[in-house]
Amino acid sequence: MSQYWSDLVRRLTPYVPGEQPRLERLIKLNTNENPYPPSPRALAALRQAAGDELRLYPDPSGDALKQAVVDYYGLSGREWVFVGNGSDEVLAFIFMALLKHQRPLLFPDITYSFYPVYCGLYDIDYRNVPLTDDFCVRIEDYAQPNGGIIFPNPNAPTGRALALAEIQRLLAVNTDSVVVVDEAYVDFGGESAVALCARFPNLLVVQTLSKSRSLAGLRVGFAVGHPALIEALERVKNSFNSYPLDRFALAGAVAALEDRDYFEQTRNQVIASREQLTRELEMLGFEVLPSAANFVFARHRDHDAAGLQAQLRAQSIIVRHFRAPRIDQFLRITVGTDAECAALLGALRSIVG
Amino acid sequence: MSQYWSDLVRRLTPYVPGEQPRLERLIKLNTNENPYPPSPRALAALRQAAGDELRLYPDPSGDALKQAVVDYYGLSGREWVFVGNGSDEVLAFIFMALLKHQRPLLFPDITYSFYPVYCGLYDIDYRNVPLTDDFCVRIEDYAQPNGGIIFPNPNAPTGRALALAEIQRLLAVNTDSVVVVDEAYVDFGGESAVALCARFPNLLVVQTLSKSRSLAGLRVGFAVGHPALIEALERVKNSFNSYPLDRFALAGAVAALEDRDYFEQTRNQVIASREQLTRELEMLGFEVLPSAANFVFARHRDHDAAGLQAQLRAQSIIVRHFRAPRIDQFLRITVGTDAECAALLGALRSIVG
Repeated sequence: MSQYWSDLVRRLTPYVPGEQPRLERLIKLNTNENPYPPSPRALAALRQAAGDELRLYPDPSGDALKQAVVDYYGLSGREWVFVGNGSDEVLAFIFMALLKHQRPLLFPDITYSFYPVYCGLYDIDYRNVPLTDDFCVRIEDYAQPNGGIIFPNPNAPTGRALALAEIQRLLAVNTDSVVVVDEAYVDFGGESAVALCARFPNLLVVQTLSKSRSLAGLRVGFAVGHPALIEALERVKNSFNSYPLDRFALAGAVAALEDRDYFEQTRNQVIASREQLTRELEMLGFEVLPSAANFVFARHRDHDAAGLQAQLRAQSIIVRHFRAPRIDQFLRITVGTDAECAALLGALRSIVG
Repeated sequence: MSQYWSDLVRRLTPYVPGEQPRLERLIKLNTNENPYPPSPRALAALRQAAGDELRLYPDPSGDALKQAVVDYYGLSGREWVFVGNGSDEVLAFIFMALLKHQRPLLFPDITYSFYPVYCGLYDIDYRNVPLTDDFCVRIEDYAQPNGGIIFPNPNAPTGRALALAEIQRLLAVNTDSVVVVDEAYVDFGGESAVALCARFPNLLVVQTLSKSRSLAGLRVGFAVGHPALIEALERVKNSFNSYPLDRFALAGAVAALEDRDYFEQTRNQVIASREQLTRELEMLGFEVLPSAANFVFARHRDHDAAGLQAQLRAQSIIVRHFRAPRIDQFLRITVGTDAECAALLGALRSIVG
């Protein structure tokens, strides 16, 4: 604390990201990174970008990347797309531009822990809507006065997906505020709501290239929605930082979106490994929530989650544990390669077996 | 305008960056980019970064880059350094964390045009302090109640530098609020205030790798100041985006800061070209303000600035003109290669000669 701090800084409670340990030979299953490398086409484009033109500013509007998203989803134009420095930056702009209103913002009680942090940053009033006992989003619970609604689909850290028909049902009744669907994990088994954007002017869908495109190290996210919503985000972005995406981020993201074969192949592999991992965890006495993401959320019937996490760490395996109500007996485990999953299961077998 | 916009978005007046034209064969002297390519060591590090580890998040705290700044300036530790996605993002966090107070923020009437935009974004009260008739910052004019002071040194778009002794004189009397010195252009002839940070706990110095390190396309900036000021910035950053610097930005910036020989060589070349360009512009009838930056600010005794800009553009040469009080007869011209400067002078000769 310092006399020079603004009132805002004094009251902030910053987000704490999952640990990025620097130990070698670790099996790192704690931050939902993809176990496979980025597309070879993306890597080639990135090597290509390491040239003399780095002396020049990047395109401030990121048009080539917006066009790649338009092409991927068959949108009607670039004015339906906003791009940013990771989906966290995209979300930060969304909270500021579209979710700060008189009425409270609604989001699940168990969800991405950055949402309440953004509310603190922008002084946004919010209300937690409890998930059901089996950790599902129930649309009826959101039928209440609100200044906006946001949830991840699939949800994090539960991994549970909501059917597109449910989201449509919500949009049909909630027309006075923006509904944000945060699809960081959608490519591993969810149904994207991008298809609904043309019909609902208050729907905004957020995605990232960190997970399903194996580009967490590149920091690229985007939002799709009605041009009036996108314009609000552009206005905030252009009042904050004109060039948030560097030349590597733009070039690598375009190439990754274009390489559909590699994307299909690696996401299918992750999905197959998740199903295998789920079966094996169940055989070891874990309850595993149905996951449509690249992680599973699991609790053991006899073993304390914090203890399991510590014992795994002693064997150089890192998983994530949240000390939060309702979920403090769960571990969130990223789906690794089959070899990493086997090592995890071997370690768990020695602990719980 | 849309019913879904927050009040904030409605009242914003976003920043307008210098044009990034896509025409080929243009002589681009409008956004103060370095005419020389980045350090070969930086380019090698960037090619190296295009690998499989891009699937993993970058270091959220950017410790290797902070250490490179510590080593470059001989600071006592990484807690004196904040790093961000270009100095614009660093400035955005500074305005939010350290410059929003009851009393008005002070900055020159002619200065970086993003400052009033940040004030709009965060609803910060500010007061413009006029430069002298010859476009200098006069320290005495800042001896008034304030919630913070910010100015670039050298100033933009004038290019005029303030001596370090003057900044020290300001810090000696202004102890109750933060003084931010924005040194985007300092390497081309200014004196850095980093040397004063250890003595003044309210001094924050901002720099960028966009100009003197030829890395505008990579988006890296940093701030140096007392750890209590840096902590405020970290708190805001960790409430906004945990990983604003991607793996390329971190790797390229470290290598660029380490390559001191290349840095000295290219900045000296830019300085020599600026002095030559200044002399030749004066011979063509321009008044050129003394510049310590990689651009000059010049007006012609007989020719209207907007007209000159348009005529240069017709010859595929882009310079910047600001339609603003006191400076609407000036052109801001980036120092290019000697060949680019010669082409500019040839074109001007044909227009004014």
